[in-house]
Amino acid sequence: MDDDDLRRGKPSCHKAFDEATALLVGDALQALAFEILAKDDTLDVGAERRTQMIATLATASGSYGMAGGQAIDLAAVGEVPTLSELENMHRLKTGALIRASVRLGVLTSEDVTEDCMQALDIYAQQIGLAFQITDDILDVEGDARTLGKAPGADQAHSKPTYPAIMGLQAAKEKRVKLAESALSALSPLGDSASVLASLAQHVIQRTH
Amino acid sequence: MDDDDLRRGKPSCHKAFDEATALLVGDALQALAFEILAKDDTLDVGAERRTQMIATLATASGSYGMAGGQAIDLAAVGEVPTLSELENMHRLKTGALIRASVRLGVLTSEDVTEDCMQALDIYAQQIGLAFQITDDILDVEGDARTLGKAPGADQAHSKPTYPAIMGLQAAKEKRVKLAESALSALSPLGDSASVLASLAQHVIQRTH
Repeated sequence: MDDDDLRRGKPSCHKAFDEATALLVGDALQALAFEILAKDDTLDVGAERRTQMIATLATASGSYGMAGGQAIDLAAVGEVPTLSELENMHRLKTGALIRASVRLGVLTSEDVTEDCMQALDIYAQQIGLAFQITDDILDVEGDARTLGKAPGADQAHSKPTYPAIMGLQAAKEKRVKLAESALSALSPLGDSASVLASLAQHVIQRTH
Repeated sequence: MDDDDLRRGKPSCHKAFDEATALLVGDALQALAFEILAKDDTLDVGAERRTQMIATLATASGSYGMAGGQAIDLAAVGEVPTLSELENMHRLKTGALIRASVRLGVLTSEDVTEDCMQALDIYAQQIGLAFQITDDILDVEGDARTLGKAPGADQAHSKPTYPAIMGLQAAKEKRVKLAESALSALSPLGDSASVLASLAQHVIQRTH
């Protein structure tokens, strides 16, 4: 088994089964997400709100979100991106869905103010990037046992990472600043945002 | 280029570009379909109707539709299915989306009766199967120039087909019966269904 075929200590789907099955599972789960948003009764919102949630998820998944980010990543294989190119790629590839997941939570409530929605959107963007930087740092410093996958896979595949482009120390400082900025965006929300504040801490302190 | 790398006379996406790109395009287009149903202004229906359309498309695309049918197809490689197993696979793999496309059309109109909706659903199921049988027949009899791809690809890959399982003549008779049954489902709708009637004819008479 290759170094990068483990996720949380278990074989990834394409290894446990095969690539075609893994791809089909992805397709089926993508459809299931939209089906749930469209008609699941445990989601207690009206049809108008459901269509907003579906549009949010669709935009974050497609050309201007995850799929677009992955396409940029593929196109850049073997090239060394600038920091802003790397950031743009991650903003789409992983950031868009993290941002969408926060927005979907907001949309389940009918009485969230525009200010609150914007604060949470800033929060989501900061932790999305901090999450990715932490991923890159763990690939350099992580322990295979706690990481659940072998570290060093990014380097082995010459993937551009934050530590490679800006240095390990600068990458660590950047994620701390991002977490601080995420917490600061939450401050007007007071105690009601304490779970989100813990999540921001977890994102940069996690070891796997 | 392999025999089955052409579609309508042009290289398929995974040949013109590469497999990873083709897969990403599929992901992006799937997301785009849901985005359009959720918010495109040219679709002149209310939010409630939009959620019904999205649920219809999602169910037809996922585990109980196209993705599930494709999984059955993959699992059956090298095995010879019974006719009913073959039919069940096609009902999901290609039939579910053909059926959904008819239902989506119906759902754009606010004043379709339940009887009419059921008649069109029967129509869609019959032409979905007739379409697949025609595909299989063209793989045996088709001309590469009009077909836009090389015939014989199914046989070369030992794929189960209607002609292989029931014989070419019986397959031809079956598709005629299906088309007749599709037309008969349309008859209560009169002239308003004439385009759909032409489509049923086209499905079994097409040469590509």
